[in-house]
This record gives sequence, C-alpha cells and structure tokens, in this order.
Amino acid sequence: MTALTLGILGAGQLGRMLALAGYPLGLNFRFYDSTPHAPAGQLAPLTVGDFDDLPALSAWANGVDIITYEFENVPVRAAEHLSAHAPVFPPPRALREAQDRLPEKTLFRALGLPTPQFQAVDTLPDLHAAADRLGYPLVLKTRRLGYDGKGQSVVRTPADLLPAWETLGAGHAPLIAEAFVPFERELSSLAARGRDGRTVCYPLIQNQHRGGILRVSHAPAPAVSPALQAQAEDYIHRVLTELNYVGVLAIEWFVHGGQLLANEMAPRVHNSGHWTQDGAITSQFENHLRAILGWPLGDPTPRAHTVMLNCIGALPNPTEVCAVPEAHLHLYGKTPRPGRKVGHVNLCASDPNTLQARLNALQLLISEA
Amino acid sequence: MTALTLGILGAGQLGRMLALAGYPLGLNFRFYDSTPHAPAGQLAPLTVGDFDDLPALSAWANGVDIITYEFENVPVRAAEHLSAHAPVFPPPRALREAQDRLPEKTLFRALGLPTPQFQAVDTLPDLHAAADRLGYPLVLKTRRLGYDGKGQSVVRTPADLLPAWETLGAGHAPLIAEAFVPFERELSSLAARGRDGRTVCYPLIQNQHRGGILRVSHAPAPAVSPALQAQAEDYIHRVLTELNYVGVLAIEWFVHGGQLLANEMAPRVHNSGHWTQDGAITSQFENHLRAILGWPLGDPTPRAHTVMLNCIGALPNPTEVCAVPEAHLHLYGKTPRPGRKVGHVNLCASDPNTLQARLNALQLLISEA
Repeated sequence: MTALTLGILGAGQLGRMLALAGYPLGLNFRFYDSTPHAPAGQLAPLTVGDFDDLPALSAWANGVDIITYEFENVPVRAAEHLSAHAPVFPPPRALREAQDRLPEKTLFRALGLPTPQFQAVDTLPDLHAAADRLGYPLVLKTRRLGYDGKGQSVVRTPADLLPAWETLGAGHAPLIAEAFVPFERELSSLAARGRDGRTVCYPLIQNQHRGGILRVSHAPAPAVSPALQAQAEDYIHRVLTELNYVGVLAIEWFVHGGQLLANEMAPRVHNSGHWTQDGAITSQFENHLRAILGWPLGDPTPRAHTVMLNCIGALPNPTEVCAVPEAHLHLYGKTPRPGRKVGHVNLCASDPNTLQARLNALQLLISEA
Repeated sequence: MTALTLGILGAGQLGRMLALAGYPLGLNFRFYDSTPHAPAGQLAPLTVGDFDDLPALSAWANGVDIITYEFENVPVRAAEHLSAHAPVFPPPRALREAQDRLPEKTLFRALGLPTPQFQAVDTLPDLHAAADRLGYPLVLKTRRLGYDGKGQSVVRTPADLLPAWETLGAGHAPLIAEAFVPFERELSSLAARGRDGRTVCYPLIQNQHRGGILRVSHAPAPAVSPALQAQAEDYIHRVLTELNYVGVLAIEWFVHGGQLLANEMAPRVHNSGHWTQDGAITSQFENHLRAILGWPLGDPTPRAHTVMLNCIGALPNPTEVCAVPEAHLHLYGKTPRPGRKVGHVNLCASDPNTLQARLNALQLLISEA
C-alpha cells in the first residue's frame, strides 16, 4: 500500500490543520495557493500559482489522489477542471451555491430552511425597492467574496441608502439586500457526510462575532433543547443530501424568536469547529479527511465543555496561556497584522462553572485586535 | 516575536510526533538523522549526517534555539558538543547514564530504587562468577545499544553460558548479567520536569512485550493502589532531581511480589506514553516540548480509559480501524518490514468494559508480526 496524496487548494490555517490531522492517518499532502508564505507551506510542498491558471493547476494535480479545498472562493471552473484529474470533494456544485449569497439563500428556501428576507440588488432603483419591501434596518452585502464582515453595510435609514450603495461598488458587483435580524444569538451546525452518504452531526455551537469576525465559540452551545438540535440536524441533512455532499459542511444560523434562520454556509472545515480538536472525540479536520477518503466517519460526541477563543492581530504569550489549566494552544505560523487570525485557544473543562472560571483568566491573555 | 526553532536529533516516529505536537505551539523544527528517509523528514527539514560528525552537527545547529533528541543512543560527545550552540535538553548526563545498563542500574541503586540483582561481565570468568552469585535463569545483555529486545540472551542452565557469551560478542562489548525476574507484570512511569524543576507524573501504565517489543499498553494500568502510584512517583522524582532533568523521562518497572523493580529508563518520549495523545489532557509530546521550552507543564490527567496497540510489520487497513468507535490511528509514514513499528492505534472508552469490547474487535485488525 502506498500512501495516498491529498491535494488541497488553499494553504491557510485550515489547510495546515488538515495536514496536522492527516499525517497520523498516513496521508501525504500537497498545497496550491496564490501566496508564497501561506501557513500550510511549513508542513507540505506548496505550489504558488493563480487559481485561474488551469495548466498550472493540472501540473500540480498530477499524481494527486484526491483533491479538496480549504476556502470557498476557489473558482468553480478550477474545481471542475481538476475533477478530470482526481475526485474533488466537496463537489464543485457546493462551491457554486456557497459563493453567491443569492443562489445560496434561494437554495435554503427551496429546501425549506427559513432565512432572513432577501432581495437581489443590481441597480439603485432595486435598492430602493428592496428597502420598501424589507424595511429598516437592512443589510446590503456583496453577493460574492464577502468574508469576516467585509463587503457589508448596515442601512438604518433612507439617508444611508446612497452611501451604502457607493461603498459597495455602486453596482459594479451584484448585491443582495437582507432584512436585519435582531437575533437573540448566533449558532452554527457542523456535519460531515461520507462518500456513502452516512452523516455525523456535531452539537450546535454558539458563536460571538465582533466587527464581523468570529471571536468566541461555545461548544456545545448552552440551552439548546433536543428539538432545536434535531431541527438543525434536519436542516443540514437537507442541504447535504441535495448537494450530494462529501466532507464537512458548516451552516451559520441566527436565532430569532427561538427559531433558526439560515445565514450562510461554508463548504469546508470551519472556524466555529476548531473546538473539536480538543473537545470532541473526532475533530472536524479528521472527519473531513475520513469523509473525502471514503473511510468510516468518527464519533462527533463532545468529551468536554469547550470554548474556542480566536487570537486576532497579535500572538498570545504562550507561557501565560499554558498556565491556564486545559488551555490548548493552536498557532498558525502567521505574522500578526491587525484583524488577522493568527491562532486560537481551545479551553476545556468537565463542567460549565469550571470552564467559566478558566475563561475569565484566559480572556485577559488573548488579543482580539 | 519570531518563532523558536527546535533542533531534534533523530527523525524517527518520536521526532515526527514531537513536530505534530509542536506546530500548534508555534514552533519550527529541524531534524538531524543518519538515514535519509526518516519519518519526520516529511514534516520539517532533515539534515542527513553521522552523529560523530561534529562539524556537520555544528552547521546544523546554527540558528537553532533549543536542541533535544528522540533516541537515547545519540553519542554523549555530540550532545555535549552541541551544548555550546544551544541548550540541550534533557541534559547530556541523562544520556550517559541511560546508554549503559551498568551505570544506569548503579544510579537506580544509589537513589534507593530497587532493581534486579546485576553484575558486570567483561570476561568469561566474570560470567561464571555472576552465574554463581545470581543463579539461574539469568539474563545476559550488552550494556550499550540494546533496544526492542536486541542484545539479550536468557541463560537457563550452565550449558547456556558459553553460547550466550558468544552470541553477545564474546567480550568484544561490555556485558551485564541480571537476575531473571519472574515478574507479575510490567509497568512504566512517565514524568515531565520543567526548567524550573516542576514535575508532572502520568499514571502508571501497564505494558505487554513480546519478542522484546512493546505490543500493548493499558492506561491507566488496572489495579494500581494509591500507594504503588505514590511509590513510582517518589522513585522517578529521585531520578529527575539527581539528573537535574528537563523533559519527559520514562522508567520501566518489573512488578515482583507487588514491588517495583527498576528495569531501565529512557531519557525521551516513550512508546508506552503514546496513549497520552488521545487519552490524557496533555500528551507526552506536548509536555516534553513545554518542559524544554521552559513553559508551564500541561495536565497529565487521563480523560478516558485507553489502550495503545502497536502496529508492527504491517500497516493496518485504515477503513477497518476507523470503523471501531474511538479508535485513533497514528501512522508514521514508514515502509513496513518484519518487526518494524509502523504505527499505533489509541483506543479509548469511558469505562473498562466498553474498552475491552472494542479492544476485542480492534485486535483482530492489527498485525504484530
């Protein structure tokens, strides 16, 4: 038996953590990214090229057994092109649906998943019509390439319409207007679906964003009824089945009036699933790999109460972090810049009270700049 | 803050697992080994050279912040030479004591650790004298470079003396004769000691060897009284303190008449500690790194009942292993050969009965050839 080689499009921290989870499974890795000093390049060969350069992608894929990706803005054309060389998972259709907020929310609605009200906006009159229908406040977003709160503007009054329109490119890129949801909290679902269709679901996770960037995840989310967990699992199953999905999928929810509203999905391992490295029996990274390899999936059951804290803009002092009981440091080998995710800490405890006490100590040590 | 670079002497599976544990801590790695296709070379730059080539070692150590080693047969002279370039942990004296069974057991005795009776054997008359004193059976061993049962011969009757003497080099290498211990079981202790002298001890582990090679470890070892655990911790503390030790140290024990007899020690992470990757809050690999970095040590508490099964001579089928609940696969990227350790599986469960049922299923899948 020779070792399988996985090709991963994107060599950021998600790719790096896939490799760290995959070497113990006996896998080899090969990365493709547009930047030369990407974090996963420390761990496996990294080819630097443009994601539109199909000949370069072909050369890279030569000898690769399976291809996956760690960010959802891989051009669909690149993924489809690579499918001629090796199986690409998750399927390229998942990329297409997830890259554009309009088909994404349209798919959610078609499958019966509630979403915030939304409307496509291609012109300024479209925006006025959307505001009339959705009311204020509303959120104007670029349909494509938004992440970590970029490409969004909250419109609170009619006077904000024109500035928001201009901020987001004045129609150079297609937009979507969404009703602003005064949510009680944000949750996310993570599931892995294997090549045989078998699926495992992690428990709902509670997330806190600030400035559009995920800061903290609690897992399992507190105060989740069995009915809410079952509802979330039913919803994510519908999406997984429709897309004939293989790999890990994340869906982010707003909770409003106690109900789940689908906000967006990510066809990849997800920041809100990092807690699984230390807090679940099988991590999201290992389960993504098992899924795309066609191996049996691992148990997603939590083995502790866990909080994941993102380190943003600055590296924490490791001697301070390591002094906190059951704090597990995960750095990405990145140079800090404001707003840049450079690592995270998973903090575990066997009960919520102990966890909160430790969290109080840990939060003083972690930058969120 | 620039990332620290650790230099590791030896690039086998232990070095590989140190790197897998250390990348999340933000560390860089550099390996030195005498063989080009060593398992850790997949994960970090590997310099191939002789361990006696001091200029090559110096060149390799240029720019390295801390040096450690993953096997105990690194020449003491190499470790001492490298100390001029960067701190070397564990201290070279630990290497010297552990490399030769005579000073090793003499040290144990001097510190009050019971050992099997032993006697140095340099000549054939020495061997006859040792047999007269120790009785039969006895075990004749090379004092240096023995591992996985190599360099040993059991002498059951006077007629075995001469063949054993000749098998082990007829005096070309110094030998030691040890009383054969009809042990009830074999245990091991693992502890990590930081630069500040603080120490954490893992619970006693129960080990089964066959053909001199470790096959299975149970952690925590069953039926260990608090008094026995305390005794083991007291003994390992004595050794750690005497050596002013920094890093992970393992001591293997025979249990005879309910008492611990020190068999040997390893100044490094140890095969009987692999269970900690999935079964303890902090793995031996992370604690070794924290110790040599001068960081606070992590909690050694078990978080499950765990069995570690070595995969010897053949790779297991990963789809079969992954179908066993809570089985965690750890392969080393090695080509199988008879007697070669190519990986291990950590199997966890929250109670011993569930663990045993899973173990029955898993053992059918694992080669021990």
